Formats: sequence, structure tokens, C-alpha cells
Amino acid sequence: MNIQEIRDYLGQFFDSVELVGSAERFISGPAKIETAETGQVSFIANEKYARFLASTAASLVIVHRSVCVDEFIQRTSFLKVDDPYTAFVFILQKFATPRSIAAKGIASTAVIGEGVSIGEDVAIGEYAVIGDRCSIGSNCVIGAHTVLLHDVSLGEDTVLFPAVTCYDGTIVGKRVVIHSGSVIGADGFGFAPQKDGSYVKIPQMGIVEIGDDVEIGSNATIDRATLGRTVICRGAKIDNLVQVAHNCRIGEDTVIAAQAGISGSVTIGRQCMIGGQAGFAGHLELADRIQVAAQAGISKSFLQPGIALRGYPAQPMRDQLKHEAMLRNLGAMKEKLERLDAELKELKKK
Amino acid sequence: MNIQEIRDYLGQFFDSVELVGSAERFISGPAKIETAETGQVSFIANEKYARFLASTAASLVIVHRSVCVDEFIQRTSFLKVDDPYTAFVFILQKFATPRSIAAKGIASTAVIGEGVSIGEDVAIGEYAVIGDRCSIGSNCVIGAHTVLLHDVSLGEDTVLFPAVTCYDGTIVGKRVVIHSGSVIGADGFGFAPQKDGSYVKIPQMGIVEIGDDVEIGSNATIDRATLGRTVICRGAKIDNLVQVAHNCRIGEDTVIAAQAGISGSVTIGRQCMIGGQAGFAGHLELADRIQVAAQAGISKSFLQPGIALRGYPAQPMRDQLKHEAMLRNLGAMKEKLERLDAELKELKKK
Amino acid sequence: MNIQEIRDYLGQFFDSVELVGSAERFISGPAKIETAETGQVSFIANEKYARFLASTAASLVIVHRSVCVDEFIQRTSFLKVDDPYTAFVFILQKFATPRSIAAKGIASTAVIGEGVSIGEDVAIGEYAVIGDRCSIGSNCVIGAHTVLLHDVSLGEDTVLFPAVTCYDGTIVGKRVVIHSGSVIGADGFGFAPQKDGSYVKIPQMGIVEIGDDVEIGSNATIDRATLGRTVICRGAKIDNLVQVAHNCRIGEDTVIAAQAGISGSVTIGRQCMIGGQAGFAGHLELADRIQVAAQAGISKSFLQPGIALRGYPAQPMRDQLKHEAMLRNLGAMKEKLERLDAELKELKKK
Repeated sequence: MNIQEIRDYLGQFFDSVELVGSAERFISGPAKIETAETGQVSFIANEKYARFLASTAASLVIVHRSVCVDEFIQRTSFLKVDDPYTAFVFILQKFATPRSIAAKGIASTAVIGEGVSIGEDVAIGEYAVIGDRCSIGSNCVIGAHTVLLHDVSLGEDTVLFPAVTCYDGTIVGKRVVIHSGSVIGADGFGFAPQKDGSYVKIPQMGIVEIGDDVEIGSNATIDRATLGRTVICRGAKIDNLVQVAHNCRIGEDTVIAAQAGISGSVTIGRQCMIGGQAGFAGHLELADRIQVAAQAGISKSFLQPGIALRGYPAQPMRDQLKHEAMLRNLGAMKEKLERLDAELKELKKK
Repeated sequence: MNIQEIRDYLGQFFDSVELVGSAERFISGPAKIETAETGQVSFIANEKYARFLASTAASLVIVHRSVCVDEFIQRTSFLKVDDPYTAFVFILQKFATPRSIAAKGIASTAVIGEGVSIGEDVAIGEYAVIGDRCSIGSNCVIGAHTVLLHDVSLGEDTVLFPAVTCYDGTIVGKRVVIHSGSVIGADGFGFAPQKDGSYVKIPQMGIVEIGDDVEIGSNATIDRATLGRTVICRGAKIDNLVQVAHNCRIGEDTVIAAQAGISGSVTIGRQCMIGGQAGFAGHLELADRIQVAAQAGISKSFLQPGIALRGYPAQPMRDQLKHEAMLRNLGAMKEKLERLDAELKELKKK
Repeated sequence: MNIQEIRDYLGQFFDSVELVGSAERFISGPAKIETAETGQVSFIANEKYARFLASTAASLVIVHRSVCVDEFIQRTSFLKVDDPYTAFVFILQKFATPRSIAAKGIASTAVIGEGVSIGEDVAIGEYAVIGDRCSIGSNCVIGAHTVLLHDVSLGEDTVLFPAVTCYDGTIVGKRVVIHSGSVIGADGFGFAPQKDGSYVKIPQMGIVEIGDDVEIGSNATIDRATLGRTVICRGAKIDNLVQVAHNCRIGEDTVIAAQAGISGSVTIGRQCMIGGQAGFAGHLELADRIQVAAQAGISKSFLQPGIALRGYPAQPMRDQLKHEAMLRNLGAMKEKLERLDAELKELKKK
């Protein structure tokens, strides 16, 4: 693909794509600015990386329209856009070769239950096991060794990588991606304590429902509801090793980073960002667009949209940063206290 | 099932089950009080939910015997018991349809090793792999794709969901449930540091032993002992993504919430409750009935039974809450310190 | 094996192996000093355990050459070395029976893609799925149900336990061990935020490269790079449930304990030790030989080799311990402050 073709391609997404330098160079693929070689396309979205403008061997660099690049155009061409980062993501998508997770069709070793409905153009991999009455939408890809128990439904264009497990009744939307090792719909952790200290299992009779355009990383666990549904809403993104307990509701376009843990019956709003290893106590609620720092411990509901939370127990960012500054200042407080003590003694002597 | 039948059923578990209202209504299944519809049974165990007494459409509600319900009996019947929460759990158990994890018998695609002993009425799913000399108790259910390496034994009525892995020598008791993706008996993390900075692997020659009535969530990891046994005692419940390292001993009826991590050679007593994401340093001991708060970091042994621990490093709840109150009070301390400083200066001037 | 044979065996590794007591006793295997029985070999590397010298039934105990054992030689023989712990590790290796993960050869149920190259003496287990153009080194062992997507290469003598998943393009070195349930090379967690609050997926076009002699525990996740490589260098050891995000580089002989989480583009030096549940913010760097305490939160780069870090946000150990001591002392500070306040009031009255 040459630079003119890339410019035309980006023109679909941006009002203005200004070319500076030659339109003719051939572009073989994308690379990071630090390691890009002749023939490759890269980007600069952050001033920190502007120093690479002079040294990069890249043949094309995507930059913000405000960046002056005139001195570099002999070796490098530039496309100027509003949002070079997103432009580069589109370029990555253009060059990405579709990954072959399973061959089109149904592998001869796959086991398909009774009453299964299968859409057009699916790919079902080796040793996949599809339970009775499952429904597989058109263009779905199911990796080798993935297991769907009974009554699971997958919307169109959904991709399950190898070795995903969906328990019975799980509902998965369209264009969902679930990575290997994730377990969707296992029993919630519910046990009723008895007088003798033992526990009686609370049957977990609900299901998990996953909306359209959700992506779930590897080895995550999303438990079914006790009654009703655990819901991952449209567009949410859930990273590796995340735990979502029974009866949670994760809002649209909310992002949860790796190893975060959401206890039972938590409701998280839309467009929230949850940091890695953050933890939530049960039965609480977060409003929309809340940001939770990594390793934070959320112990109560926060109902004001758009705030940032941090610390353990977590509190609004401003309060927490003030608190942390005070903690860093403890040594000075201690010294002042000792000085006052000495001065007071001195004064009393007199 | 009608209300009289539900009353008779609960009579097995409770000394007194008092009916208020009609015994005739037909009950189709359980539901949460907020969403229950006509024909459904629900419960109220918490005053917070008492406001739903007036509005619920449920045909039957289980309440504590002290609750006055006379004004609601036209639409709703009530069963009054000592412990409505547990009563509802028994009702859930009554209505729960047995989940079909694998069909009765041995799937034709399962691979069974040499010298395997298999009890009556087992269900072994598609592509399960059972190593040599394994022993499978009667009524066991082994999901699709579950792998037992050699010399694994499962007691009667044990259920392994799909894609569980048990390493060689693992001993599993009766009525145990292990959810998908959990790995039992992998090598402990043991490496001996060498002078050149590299490591020599310490062979992990022990096993894992899991007692009766244990339940283990999905994607948990329980490592084999270096020598001897890692033991999960009878009745313990272990949630998703929990790590139990080599040579640990988890006491009877102890509950460990999701993502907690127990380092090597830790001994936890009976009936303890370990919060989510809590972490334990190695080689320490917890007495019986200790409660550990979520995200706590246990850095030493606590040998007094029944205490509650919290914080990092964790300390008894009372001390920790006092400490946290003091932390919240830091701003006031700082102000007071500044006031004293000013007053002292004033005084010295005089 | 008798004691003389064990002495000769250890002589390969140590300059001096002094025998005290009989050389003739037959040794059946290793055991912990607390539980060792007649015929077994154990060790004492720590003074704490010296009390067992008088009571152990072990027929052979490995001790440091400085330990005086003359009074115990009637029942027990001793081998004195520089490093009894490492000596015992070598003895464990001697007695460890090779674990049978998969039978030699290629199981008839394994699915081998096109253009796969397979070395000599491999063992490929039941239902393993090997993608097109994979390369399997000699003496590799691939457990049942392990899946390699296309273009994966494994060096010689590498062992993948059952149910490992390697995504396309993963490069694995020689003598690597990966335990069950781990997922290598899944997509990094990269999504570009859009103006409407939704996300566009950033194609993850890089790979994972794992060096020689690496060991990875069970249910760990190591994500592929967005562009380029996520690299686990030679000799690194990674425990269960650890998350390594896209574009990280983990140095040689670095050890990462269970449930630690390393965010994207983090570089960790050689011979570091990362505690369990520690977390790293993205795009930062750690020098060589740094020790990170369990549950620490690393929020910035630390470039001084050999330091120890602790706390949240983590700081050098000395600063953090001083800080923690100050926190423990808060009560005393508060009392002193109140005393000064009272004294000052008293003084002002006069």
C-alpha cells in the first residue's frame, strides 16, 4: 500500500488528512517509532516522542496537525490528523491479517448436541463441545476445545478463542470476543452458614448475559446470578484474570483492568474505568464515568458521576491525594511536635 | 407445588413453620422480592427489604416469625420460620433442576487409562482424559475436557465441571465440586537460588488432598506439596482465582473469597472467613474462626481464635479501626499542632 | 541407595561432603525433618529446626559443616556441606520419579496441522491440537488438551502440561515448563477511546517470546505485544495467576510470585524478586536485583539496582519501614499533642 492509499483510507474516518512529503512511498506495515524501519509507518501522539522525528527511519509518520515537520520530509512523509493515535489504530486494523483461530466449517471432531442451531459461515474448531439446544450465530468462530454447556446462545460474529467454557444458559451478544481459559457462568459463591459452622450450598439458578461488542480477556471468571442475571453490558471490556461475581451489572463501555475483583451484586455504571487489582465489596453501586485507581478498595457506593477514586478504603481522588500528602508529611509533624515540647519545657523552667 | 407442600418440605428442617394465608396457591418457582411475580415464592430476611411486603406480587413470602403480615394476606401467603434466609435456600434447592454437565455413562470420546476403577452411575463427558490407575467413585460427574493425570482418586458423588485439571496423585473426597479451569496439584513454586543468580528447581514430590464437601470455584490453583500434602479440609469453600500454595492446610468449613492468595506452608484453622484479594505471607498460622478482611495483608501468625483482622500489615480489627480513625483525624492533628505553635510563639513574646 | 552413594552423588556439586556416622544405611527417600522416618533422608538449614536433631527418626540428615552432631550418630548419619538446603534439593532431584504427563510418541487423537516440524522423542498427549507450521523441539512433552495455534515454536526439552494455550506466533525456548491453564500470547488489553465513550480495538499484532529455562505456573496470562514482542527472558520464574501485559520485558532469572500483575510496557531487570499480589503501573522500569514486597504498588520507575521496595505507593524499604513505624506511633503523637495542649493552657492561665 502506498501513502496515497493510506491517506484515502484514513479519509473515511477523519475530516482532514493532510499529506506533507511524497505520496509515492510504499508502506509494508506498522511499527513503533523507536524501531521503525524504511518502508514502515509509525505515529507520534505524545510530545515525549517528538525527539524521534529527527531520527526515525519510518517512511511515513502520523502526527497531529499542529506539528511542524517540514525539515524532515526528505526521508519521511507525514499525514497530519486531529487524532494521530486513533489514526494509527485504524492503520493497524488495515494491516492486521485476520487471525486463523479455527478453519471455516465444523471440525469433524467437534461434538454438536441435539437441537443446536448454527448460522452461516461459522468456524467450529477441533474438539469443541456444543451442548444441546445451543444457538450459534452466523460468522461465529469457536476455538478448539471450547465447551458450551446446554442452552448457550452466541450472537453473530462472536469469537471464542480455544478453551473457553460457557456454562448452561449463557447468553452472548454479537461481535463479542472471549479469550482462552475464561469461564462464563460458573456458580456464584453462595453458601448459607449453619449453626454447626458448616455451609449449605445456595443453588445458583440464574445466568450470565453478555452484551454486544464486549471483549473478555484470558482466564477471567464471570459467575452466573443466584436468581436472575449477571449482566455485562454492551461494549464493556474486561481484562485477564478479572473476577465478576454473581448478580453484578457492569455498565456499557466500562473498562476493567487485569485482576480486579467485583463482589456479588455490585452495579457499575457506564464508561467507568476500573484499575488493575482494584477490589469491590458486595452490594454497592458506582455511578457512570467513575475512575477507580489500581489496587483501590471500594467499600461503599459512590453515586456522583465522573469522580475519580483511590486508596483503601477508596475516597475521591482530591481527598485521597491530600491524605497521602499529609502522610508523607508525618515526619515534619513529628519534628515540629518535638520542637514544641522542648520549647514548652524551656518556657516552664523560666 | 402448592404452599402446603412447601410447608411440609420446610418442616423437615425447622421445628415450626407457621402458615399465614391461603395454603392452596400454586408456586412455580423462586424469585427475588423486588422482581417476584404472581405464582412465585420469595423471602425477606432483612428489615431493609420489609418495604416490599406491601408491593410484592409474590404469592408466597418466607419471613421471620416475628414479622406481622396480617394486612397482606389477601394477595400473599406467608410462611414464618426462625431463619427465612436458610429456608429460602432450601426452597431454591427444591426448585433447582439438576444441571446436566455430562450424560450418564462414559462418553465414547473419553480416554480411560489402564487400571482405572470406576464406580456405578458415573457420567464422564466428551474428551475427558483419565490417567492410569485413577479411581472414580460412584455417581461422580466428570465434565467434558477434564483431565486427570495418573493415580488421581475421586470420592463418591463428586462433580468436576468441564476443563478441570488434576495432576498426578491428587486425592479428592466425596461430594466435592470443582468448577471449570481450576488446576489442582500443579508444582509448588519452589526454586533454590544459586550463586550465579539462577535457580535450581526444587522437585515437588507431594500431592494435594481435598476433603469431603469442599467446593472450589473456577480458575483457582492449588499447588501440590514439596513433600507431603497440601490439604483442603472437609467443607472448605474456595472461590474463583484463589491461589493456595504448596504445603498449605486450609481448615474445615473455612471460606476463602475470590483472588485471595495463600503463600506456601500456611496453616489456616477451621471456620475462618478470608476476604477477597487478601494475601498471606508464607509459613504462618491462623487459629480457628478468624475473619480476614478483603485486601488485608497477613504478615505474621495470629493464634487467638475468633478475632477479626484487617489492614496491611493486618492487625486485629479494633486496633486497625482505631488506627484508621487516627489516620482520618490527621488533618485535625495538624491544625492543632499549628495552633499550639502559634500560641507558644505568642506566649514566648510576652 | 545407601549413604555412601548419596555422598558420591553430592560430591558432583560440592567441594566437600563430610560423612559423620555410618555409610551403610539404606535410604528410601526424602522427607521433612519433622515427619521423617527410619530409612529417610532430611536436612536442617535453619537453626530453628536444630531441635529436631535429637528427635528425628531420619537415617540421614544433611547439615551445615559447622553443626556438631557427634552425640546423635548412633541412630542417624550426617553429611556436612556448605549449603545443606541446596544439597537437599539435589537429593530431591535424585529421588524424584519422572512424572508421566504424556506417553512417548504422538497420541492418535492429537491433531497435527500442516507443515509442522516435530523433533525426536517427543510426547504429544491425547487431544492436543498443534496448528499449522508449528515447530516442536526434540524431547518436548505436550500434555493432553494443550492447544498451539499456528506458527508456535517450542525449543528442545520443553514441557507443556495439559490444557495450556499458546496463541499464534508464540516462541518458547528450551527446557521451559508451563503449567496447566496458562494462556500465552492472548491479545493485549488495548482499546482506543472514542468521542462517544465507546472503544475501538487496537489490533495486537506482536507476539510473546519466552527464553530458555523459564517456568510458568498454572492459570497465568502473558499477553502478546501490540507491535514487537512481550519477552520473558531466560531463567525467569512466574508463579500461578500472574498477569504479564503486552510489551513487557521480564529480565533473566527474575522471579514473580503468585497473582502479581505487571501492566503494559513495563521493563523489569535481571534477578528481581516480585512478591505475590504486587502491582505495577504501566510504562515503567525496574533495575536489576530489585526486591518488591508482596502487595506493593509500584507507581514509578526505580533505576537503582538491588534496592527493596514496599508499600503503596511503593518506596525504598528503609523509607517505607520508617514511614510504617511513624504510623504505628501515631497514637503516641496524638497523646503528646494533647499533653502539650493542656500544659500550654495551664501556662497561659498563670
